[in-house]
Amino acid sequence: MKIYETSTAPNPRRVRMFMAEKGLLDKARFEQVDIVKGENLTPEFTARNPMKKVPVLELDDGTCISETLAICRYFEEAYPDTPHLLGDTPLEKAQIEQWLRWIEFYLMQPTTMCFQHGTGYFRDRMKPIKEWGDECGTQVQDFMMFLDEHLADRDYICCGRFTAADISAFVTIAFARVVKIRIAPEQEHLQAWYDRISARPSASV
Amino acid sequence: MKIYETSTAPNPRRVRMFMAEKGLLDKARFEQVDIVKGENLTPEFTARNPMKKVPVLELDDGTCISETLAICRYFEEAYPDTPHLLGDTPLEKAQIEQWLRWIEFYLMQPTTMCFQHGTGYFRDRMKPIKEWGDECGTQVQDFMMFLDEHLADRDYICCGRFTAADISAFVTIAFARVVKIRIAPEQEHLQAWYDRISARPSASV
Ligand SMILES: N[C@@H](CCC(=O)N[C@@H](CS)C(=O)NCC(=O)O)C(=O)O
Ligand SMILES: N[C@@H](CCC(=O)N[C@@H](CS)C(=O)NCC(=O)O)C(=O)O
Repeated sequence: MKIYETSTAPNPRRVRMFMAEKGLLDKARFEQVDIVKGENLTPEFTARNPMKKVPVLELDDGTCISETLAICRYFEEAYPDTPHLLGDTPLEKAQIEQWLRWIEFYLMQPTTMCFQHGTGYFRDRMKPIKEWGDECGTQVQDFMMFLDEHLADRDYICCGRFTAADISAFVTIAFARVVKIRIAPEQEHLQAWYDRISARPSASV
Repeated sequence: MKIYETSTAPNPRRVRMFMAEKGLLDKARFEQVDIVKGENLTPEFTARNPMKKVPVLELDDGTCISETLAICRYFEEAYPDTPHLLGDTPLEKAQIEQWLRWIEFYLMQPTTMCFQHGTGYFRDRMKPIKEWGDECGTQVQDFMMFLDEHLADRDYICCGRFTAADISAFVTIAFARVVKIRIAPEQEHLQAWYDRISARPSASV
């Protein structure tokens, strides 16, 4: 298997961390795509992912799967003897999916848009709208406040243990530094959780 | 079980259609929430879903699950003897998830934002940015063009059969009428697919 990725970008990092937790990093070769130079916009890359984003998983028969959580789902289902990060029971699977969606919609996407609309980083390929970027920054801060309260009496985001929801939130909050959003000094539950996840070996792959 | 929903809104419709395809509609009582009046903003509702959105599934023990696809996942996993709409093999599960995410990010969310930012429908609870609404409308049209090409040689979006991806795209395109986006006369593959999905009994619940 092959994974097209950009080692410094947050979505590929979510996949690497997920694979590391399952001990599956050596199952794939990682090929770097320079998204700043636009290597993801070529016809060759677009044939693999018409949405032109990393990461993309390419199976040995050439089948390509894009979207971070779809790639994670593939590993979860194809290697059932590795630690389950997407849940065991129907209720756990639903709760993790709820949290993954909240984190995607209220944290990851607004962070990305705050970055892209605020800095014009990708202005060669999209139209930055400053006012929308600012609004997204506010959404990120609101969700971090919500997470801090949620974590007041919990060590992990859901199911009473480490799951893919922790990976998604952790990687996004680490990435939020690019828009100068950091855990506030008074958000001590969020900080304690962040330190707990940081300490896992998978956080440094 | 109980489902808090708004019968005219697209996200609850995705859940109803999913349940109908599995023959599970009679498993839950449906309670209407008037989102225009803001019944979803009350402390009572917020306790069920802190993100203040419908649909919400409430289990008999009071546990609440929100997010359309998390609720669908619950039914898929809790009733394994009903038709599988989220895939059978690891590859199918990953492919359906990829498509569900594409449809969410490039079709459902831009349609919702085009509506909310373009019309100011929910201006009591969010700040509409007209320019962003317009940009989202363009994204919806681009994705519909992409879908039309994709469906040129396929009856269903993925896996060679009807899946949750068809439900998500179908419900969103039906909803896009509120922002005056319709399937263009030349998008005949998309139209043929739309008619095919429309004809299913689940499309009218
Ligand atoms: N929804 C996608 C998002 C992927 C994404 O936005 N990837 C970024 C890097 S983190 C990218 O490829 N950006 C390049 C571009 O937008 O041109 C996922 O979950 O994988
Ligand atoms: N990501 C959520 C979206 C839910 C959503 O946006 N629901 C709309 C109705 S379709 C809603 O509750 N709107 C009321 C509001 O935004 O105040 C899901 O998949 O269920």
